[in-house]
Amino acid sequence: METVKKICGGDIRTASRLIRDIEDKIPAAKSSIKKLFPHTGKSYIIGITGAPGAGKSTITDGLIAELRKKNKTIGVLAIDPTSPFSGGAILGDRIRMQRHAEDEAVFVRSLATRGSLGGLSQAVGEAIHVLEAMGKDIILIETVGIGQQEIDIINHAHSVIVVLVPGMGDEVQTMKAGLMEIADVFAINKADRAGAKQLHTELMAMLNTATPAEGYWRPPVVMIGNIYEALSFEGRIAELVQKIEEHYQYLLDSGRLAERINRKAAVEINDALKAAILEPVMNTLRESGELAAMTEKVKNRQADPHSLAEEVAQRFLK
Amino acid sequence: METVKKICGGDIRTASRLIRDIEDKIPAAKSSIKKLFPHTGKSYIIGITGAPGAGKSTITDGLIAELRKKNKTIGVLAIDPTSPFSGGAILGDRIRMQRHAEDEAVFVRSLATRGSLGGLSQAVGEAIHVLEAMGKDIILIETVGIGQQEIDIINHAHSVIVVLVPGMGDEVQTMKAGLMEIADVFAINKADRAGAKQLHTELMAMLNTATPAEGYWRPPVVMIGNIYEALSFEGRIAELVQKIEEHYQYLLDSGRLAERINRKAAVEINDALKAAILEPVMNTLRESGELAAMTEKVKNRQADPHSLAEEVAQRFLK
Repeated sequence: METVKKICGGDIRTASRLIRDIEDKIPAAKSSIKKLFPHTGKSYIIGITGAPGAGKSTITDGLIAELRKKNKTIGVLAIDPTSPFSGGAILGDRIRMQRHAEDEAVFVRSLATRGSLGGLSQAVGEAIHVLEAMGKDIILIETVGIGQQEIDIINHAHSVIVVLVPGMGDEVQTMKAGLMEIADVFAINKADRAGAKQLHTELMAMLNTATPAEGYWRPPVVMIGNIYEALSFEGRIAELVQKIEEHYQYLLDSGRLAERINRKAAVEINDALKAAILEPVMNTLRESGELAAMTEKVKNRQADPHSLAEEVAQRFLK
Repeated sequence: METVKKICGGDIRTASRLIRDIEDKIPAAKSSIKKLFPHTGKSYIIGITGAPGAGKSTITDGLIAELRKKNKTIGVLAIDPTSPFSGGAILGDRIRMQRHAEDEAVFVRSLATRGSLGGLSQAVGEAIHVLEAMGKDIILIETVGIGQQEIDIINHAHSVIVVLVPGMGDEVQTMKAGLMEIADVFAINKADRAGAKQLHTELMAMLNTATPAEGYWRPPVVMIGNIYEALSFEGRIAELVQKIEEHYQYLLDSGRLAERINRKAAVEINDALKAAILEPVMNTLRESGELAAMTEKVKNRQADPHSLAEEVAQRFLK
């Protein structure tokens, strides 16, 4: 198939078009994705997450520059929040990364999604497949915020960088408890700001309280910024890359890489089942006008959502 | 039924237990929720969203105090991020709100969720039903972050407050474009901070570019904090409440309240269909070991997720 051949040959236009079709849920995209599948699974995938404003794009940009020095080819997916009304991506391709636009070995795409059935995780999984088929060595996935949705996205990654920043208020501090469990490497950004040292201390204290199971990976903490004049932003990013390499080596040595690959496959299957089972039922109900009738009944308290859904299940499930 | 009677009588213990059962997906909870349903739909629901660290809890706390002055009974759901590993709520019942703990007319619960099938939105919908059946006049839903998941949650609300805070970096500024469309009222918190005025100006500029459709509601912007000494935090919160009341009046007068109630019913049906159709299929596949076999195939690139999911759909769907 032409599309598959072109994408495997690294054709940027064809890849971009397929990613747009994935976003737009064009049915024809599915057959291309199926055919691409055997050519996927060879890239190393790094997730970058953290609160809005933590400076994830700056770090992603730094990582691109550093990994290019090591001659790696790179794909970047910047996940965009989708407006529930306009259905369009908001951030667009991140502006800061434009300096890599001329570099053929770097392919940056933003990704949004339409529809409500948890389609973002699926779109991310499929877009990763496109970048993998293009033969990218490393794929960076940058999320927008922190939330369940972001955790779902991060499940597509092999190594996860959690970006923290001083002075974001106590909620973020408390949330570290949740972030700790998805973080493989912590990056404290804007480390020259007041409060960075305290954040570092708190994070260390929290990591110290973790009860290390056998083969426990203690997430290293990298300070990013001009804290010590001896070490520049670039120097710190190089350290971050080194920590990711160490984490990759740990995953290999401990056998945990297989676990992550398993988890990733499970997520992809989960997403595909939603699309194959729930969506056709919803579409049928929508087209027949039944969904509207159900909504009316619920609104008027004539029936509760569970009882209605159970009736539907009886009719549609064997 | 005993549980239903107790909850409709305002019994805190029974309500708390049912909310915990909803979180834990105890099957028995479902029948209670079904029976509660006719007693729901009479509360006014206010969503409070914004980035972590924006001070949503402080504003929620202020709203409780202000609404109590107006003699309203209040239910609060603080949505907690769930750790994907421990499966537990992280923040716990928000500490700041503890000052209302002695007030019988205020019922505060944090809500987390287990499981991955987008269960949070459903749990929120059901927990709202519990608070409605208890007879609360106003229900406040406070989200943790900003993301698709939060937008799903916010769809359960009639009025939405988006909390912004100065100095959160340019990503948040950009995201306002997405927030604009879910915001009914903006609150700029920590308005005494540097940058608050600029944020206000930017927000106003953005609101000015919106093309007002017929019956357009222009979201008012309320500054929270000690910016002008003449007006205290409490005074500002009173202003915020007034703006929400105006929004409610607008929804009534314009007929848009019916639209929101419709949307809410549609969300509840959508969540219930997921639970009734997708979950049993997933459970069957999991118990038979087939899900593990599928994962193995995907991992080894012997089959792609879509083709596997389509086979499953053929077997399970009539």
